[in-house]
Amino acid sequence: AGKSDLQPAERSVDFPVSVVLPAGGTGERTGLQTPKQFCSFLGRPLISYTIQAFERVSWIQSIVVVVAKENMELMTDIVQRFQHGKVRAVPGGSTRHRSICNGVLALGEEEEEEEEEEVRPEVVIIHDAVRPFVDEDFLYSIATAAKEHGAAGAVRPLVSTVIATTSDGFLDHSLERAKYRASEMPQGFTYDVIYRAYQRCSESDFEFGTECLHLALQYCGTKAKLIQGPPTLWKVTYKRDLAAAESIIKDALSRSACVITGGSARAATLADALQEAVGAHGTELDVIPDLMGENARCLLKEWNFIQLSVNRSFLSDVEAMLTVLEAANRALLHPLVVIWVHLSDSDELSVSGRAAEPAAIMDLASAAKLRNILLYGIQLHQSKDTERWERSVSRVAEITSALIRERSPALVGQLLQA
Amino acid sequence: AGKSDLQPAERSVDFPVSVVLPAGGTGERTGLQTPKQFCSFLGRPLISYTIQAFERVSWIQSIVVVVAKENMELMTDIVQRFQHGKVRAVPGGSTRHRSICNGVLALGEEEEEEEEEEVRPEVVIIHDAVRPFVDEDFLYSIATAAKEHGAAGAVRPLVSTVIATTSDGFLDHSLERAKYRASEMPQGFTYDVIYRAYQRCSESDFEFGTECLHLALQYCGTKAKLIQGPPTLWKVTYKRDLAAAESIIKDALSRSACVITGGSARAATLADALQEAVGAHGTELDVIPDLMGENARCLLKEWNFIQLSVNRSFLSDVEAMLTVLEAANRALLHPLVVIWVHLSDSDELSVSGRAAEPAAIMDLASAAKLRNILLYGIQLHQSKDTERWERSVSRVAEITSALIRERSPALVGQLLQA
Ligand SMILES: [Mg+2]
Ligand SMILES: [Mg+2]
Repeated sequence: AGKSDLQPAERSVDFPVSVVLPAGGTGERTGLQTPKQFCSFLGRPLISYTIQAFERVSWIQSIVVVVAKENMELMTDIVQRFQHGKVRAVPGGSTRHRSICNGVLALGEEEEEEEEEEVRPEVVIIHDAVRPFVDEDFLYSIATAAKEHGAAGAVRPLVSTVIATTSDGFLDHSLERAKYRASEMPQGFTYDVIYRAYQRCSESDFEFGTECLHLALQYCGTKAKLIQGPPTLWKVTYKRDLAAAESIIKDALSRSACVITGGSARAATLADALQEAVGAHGTELDVIPDLMGENARCLLKEWNFIQLSVNRSFLSDVEAMLTVLEAANRALLHPLVVIWVHLSDSDELSVSGRAAEPAAIMDLASAAKLRNILLYGIQLHQSKDTERWERSVSRVAEITSALIRERSPALVGQLLQA
Repeated sequence: AGKSDLQPAERSVDFPVSVVLPAGGTGERTGLQTPKQFCSFLGRPLISYTIQAFERVSWIQSIVVVVAKENMELMTDIVQRFQHGKVRAVPGGSTRHRSICNGVLALGEEEEEEEEEEVRPEVVIIHDAVRPFVDEDFLYSIATAAKEHGAAGAVRPLVSTVIATTSDGFLDHSLERAKYRASEMPQGFTYDVIYRAYQRCSESDFEFGTECLHLALQYCGTKAKLIQGPPTLWKVTYKRDLAAAESIIKDALSRSACVITGGSARAATLADALQEAVGAHGTELDVIPDLMGENARCLLKEWNFIQLSVNRSFLSDVEAMLTVLEAANRALLHPLVVIWVHLSDSDELSVSGRAAEPAAIMDLASAAKLRNILLYGIQLHQSKDTERWERSVSRVAEITSALIRERSPALVGQLLQA
């Protein structure tokens, strides 16, 4: 997920491609009440992550999401809230194939309200709303193979031995694993092939059919090209898969952080020590003095910010950063983490207004949380005792890594001690 | 996982059953350097969770874990550290079947050092080290079916359509999904069947065979009974599966907590408010005045403890609890969470030794962490302003739920503000 965020595509297609995302499932298998495509983690429903995987691909022109009538309003809200500009929601049919067919037909219609003219796609990619980690390279492979062969589909090696059973529930024989593959998503079709397949499709296939690839073969004589996909194509099926998906997103978001020193030499020394210590936890730190000029680009690519303050109990630097982050709409898709690290002299803490800070940072954090920015504070004391100082630095690193990794909304506004 | 922890078995078998756990895999697919069965979450390697799933079943007499020679020492350490009394580790062979065969043979040997006499098992259950969530009910089904039919194995419905490919990578045809099943683990065999199967097994099957069920059929003419297993039988294969497994364990550990009021009426009122607020986060609270007499049983079944202190900034109650928990060896298999909630009068905080507590709780937490007990503090102030008080209580609930759910070692010793 993170890779595609950071590395722009090297390859593009020169024909119009659109996407149909059937999202009508009821999610019975997750053990949750909400259909799984609408279950949220890190404050966003799964389907929005999947939509994002397509929206960030420059050569994909539009996405039709097909949802059950009772979820149309929910879907419209999601599209607006997360500003999914390439998406249109259309109501589904009574089966998976009727829903996909509705989506394909919607792609052929002109939308009168649209300002930009949308061309009827040459290739249609069909995907599952619950496979959020499809990447641009693989979409490219499917789109170009579909253009060349009329149809293309993702496959994976079988993970278990497939066995045939007798009618009374005993082992009959096992299949030779090497000859078979698991059929996965995405699949791609030229518009003509998928349109004709559904025009000719029997009622029985509309009702019970499982594979679009099979319809293309049966009704258009088109043999799909099969392409082995990466394991990330996996489908969120059970509740545990939601935890796995959340963990993948959290990994991607916690790979690096931007440290702002404010130009102070002592802060720079602390930043160097942190860089080493946090690196051991798997997070890379990019240390800069401020967010001026060139450095402002940090604000547009980072998900984590660490503001160091030396001998200043003011939160004004943090306030300024929050203002810029909010203005840039950076926290639209993922929660941002901002950690204020306050380095004080040992004697300072017993005298100065230590009671004022906790209330101030809590207020700031409560307001920021409404904008999907998670603010935490860490306090450490300068010490001339080397051992004590190193212990403090490694605790800052440990706490910082945990805050960045967990992104816990419950702990915002806390002033933690290192 | 949690269910089996709490509900004792209603059914038992009246014949000796032992287990072979092949654990020689290299874990290439997880994307991790450590073989996946040795990857840890919540401070314990995956294989120890799987071992525990068998050890807690009263009618399972022993478990032979088969590991690669280079991991024998690591495995012996794990067995000692987590006190796996039913386990013996034996070195594996060059293939999966050679390893399982070693395990089966080891079960037939007498162990001279053993004090208790171990009987040669009538039924052998074979399982994967990376499927930690197998439950007692299903093991019972496999063991009894194996006894009756000579062999039995877990199956699951196919999750994807299985397709046959042409030699040049195109769709040939798709299988009719209803006729086939995915073969999973565990599998069970009478000792005679699995022993004879390996006695007669060809070199080629030792080298390339995949299914023990198939060997039983081929070499003993035993048709295995197939039993549909629950989705929890799934195999930890990728890095994301480790996150999923951790999440399942965390869910099981965060279902309930024990609140100790110390007998104070104000603490009891707070406990009632918390009970309601935390319930909304999915955790049930069991409120007791102290840990005396009958109430001491809490210490032997809970994974989470909340100690309420009213107007006393002493940590002595917590210290006493830690001593008992350590003595009971309660944190051997899972990290325990202890949360000290300190309710103070509004004026108390500005006067009294507020600076002393953070240091005291941090020291206590650092020591407890070495014993797998995670100690956190939460401070809240009594308020006559109802709105303010309710906001504080709901923040205590939110923080408590997050601490119990996340079990973060990085945040132990912090005194959080509600
Ligand atoms: Mg299909
Ligand atoms: Mg087998």
